[in-house]
Amino acid sequence: MKSRSGKNPATTLADLGEDRFVADLTRGFAAGADVLVGAGDDCAVIGRPRDRRWQLLKTDAVVEGVHFVPEEDPRRVGWKALCRAISDIAAMGGVPAHALVTLAAAETTAFARVKALYAGLRQAARKYGVALVGGETSRSPGPLFLSIALTGWVERRHCVLRSGGRPGDSLYVTGRLGGALAGKHLDFRPRLEEARWLVSHFTVRAMMDLSDGLAADLPRLAAASRCGYSMDDNRLPVTPGCLPTQAMSDGEDYELLFAVAPRFCAALEAAWKRRFPRLLLTRIGALKHRSKAGNRNASRGYDHFAQR
Amino acid sequence: MKSRSGKNPATTLADLGEDRFVADLTRGFAAGADVLVGAGDDCAVIGRPRDRRWQLLKTDAVVEGVHFVPEEDPRRVGWKALCRAISDIAAMGGVPAHALVTLAAAETTAFARVKALYAGLRQAARKYGVALVGGETSRSPGPLFLSIALTGWVERRHCVLRSGGRPGDSLYVTGRLGGALAGKHLDFRPRLEEARWLVSHFTVRAMMDLSDGLAADLPRLAAASRCGYSMDDNRLPVTPGCLPTQAMSDGEDYELLFAVAPRFCAALEAAWKRRFPRLLLTRIGALKHRSKAGNRNASRGYDHFAQR
Repeated sequence: MKSRSGKNPATTLADLGEDRFVADLTRGFAAGADVLVGAGDDCAVIGRPRDRRWQLLKTDAVVEGVHFVPEEDPRRVGWKALCRAISDIAAMGGVPAHALVTLAAAETTAFARVKALYAGLRQAARKYGVALVGGETSRSPGPLFLSIALTGWVERRHCVLRSGGRPGDSLYVTGRLGGALAGKHLDFRPRLEEARWLVSHFTVRAMMDLSDGLAADLPRLAAASRCGYSMDDNRLPVTPGCLPTQAMSDGEDYELLFAVAPRFCAALEAAWKRRFPRLLLTRIGALKHRSKAGNRNASRGYDHFAQR
Repeated sequence: MKSRSGKNPATTLADLGEDRFVADLTRGFAAGADVLVGAGDDCAVIGRPRDRRWQLLKTDAVVEGVHFVPEEDPRRVGWKALCRAISDIAAMGGVPAHALVTLAAAETTAFARVKALYAGLRQAARKYGVALVGGETSRSPGPLFLSIALTGWVERRHCVLRSGGRPGDSLYVTGRLGGALAGKHLDFRPRLEEARWLVSHFTVRAMMDLSDGLAADLPRLAAASRCGYSMDDNRLPVTPGCLPTQAMSDGEDYELLFAVAPRFCAALEAAWKRRFPRLLLTRIGALKHRSKAGNRNASRGYDHFAQR
């Protein structure tokens, strides 16, 4: 894709790719006096710099035929829709609070299906302490569309952005990556408890949740932190039965990717094992100074992974 | 539609109708300690009873083929999408603050079209003091879908619900009704300034914005206030060139419908004329005690208008 966006009227969204097109659309979004972080991180952050607590805002949608197949158990679809947004609040170190649900569905949709979808939403809401405070519905001439708007909060001192990483920081991921397409993506548990524990006990410099796969998301975190990175492919925590390429690119892992200063690594790893003995924590690499030569990556298989 | 929802697995959304189906879905939505108003009003209201200010939350979506035709100027579509949500904040007596934009569009969508849509969003945001703080995008295999999540705030003493009306209160509407389908619905101005002025100078007991037409919305306001109502059809402020049935049922007027105690009517009408000389304010009827005999309505043409 060489043409500059907007120059060629025939340019489509597919030509641009999501990162380019979102960056282009949200450029110049008004940053009011109380907008601490606007578009570009997992959540927007609202508040004044010295407030003790900040508000987090997130919106996220699942679309039939894109994020789930029509035959899918609607209860799992509802669960997933809310958990995706909760995962983004977790990735800021925050706590989710209030959710609004926007549903567009064909008039011929069975009410039982929509009810089951809401049952999944309620289940996730109860589990993670979210209050469902509103529902908006619309007719849709096309696929079922479910959008979640979620608010949350985070103590100022615990708020973690994507942009706080520094060269030399160690990079960690939770859990195992890959294989979400086999079904895990509908039942995943957002790493809310883990993220809260992390930000309460350690200085986490940068964090995000892995929704598009490490191959896409790690470069985003590094770029937000104005860093390069190196990765040790041999340490990649691959889901049993999956290939490393799947672990890198399947996406929808909803695990945490985060950066901490190397001097805390030993203490973090020991404390993690005691606190979450059943959840893997893997040091997969480090942030580096940016270099024009691109990022060092142990694997030669991931050229698309180079810094763009 | 006689069957009870959920009893018959073949029941569709069209069978139930929106009010029934939203009420059914949102029943038992967790009302956390800080949820003052959940589903069922124009916005959710968040806060503690004695807070000086409360937060308002609203989500609203427009769908291609339902709320606008594919050929429509995308700038007007963006304007409309944000203004619909602003209108709901206004109807609570509040001030809009931060918006998040969720867009689902086919990969083949021209980027220029999406850009124009965002230009309309920005225009509305600038005009009404809203900060656009995030954008989420998704592929859609179907129509273009645009969902807005909007936060706002309102002073506790100025917050107006649908449910505060009392028998005897006079009912007013702003502007003229009907004819939105001819194009007005894409360029309307949410009555933000008017609503703020109203709540600052008068005790408005109940208010909502007219999105589905007076024939659908007036019974909603009356029911929320546990009242019946009477209406004087001869006073209906019909848009020139429209029929009274259009004024009642076209919808998408985005005017205010509100209730005030009769002792304030003369002062309100006089002050309104001075403050908004170019915008009509019409007393269309009154809230009544509920009676099993249904509502008195001067027009015999609106049987669907009876209390359900």
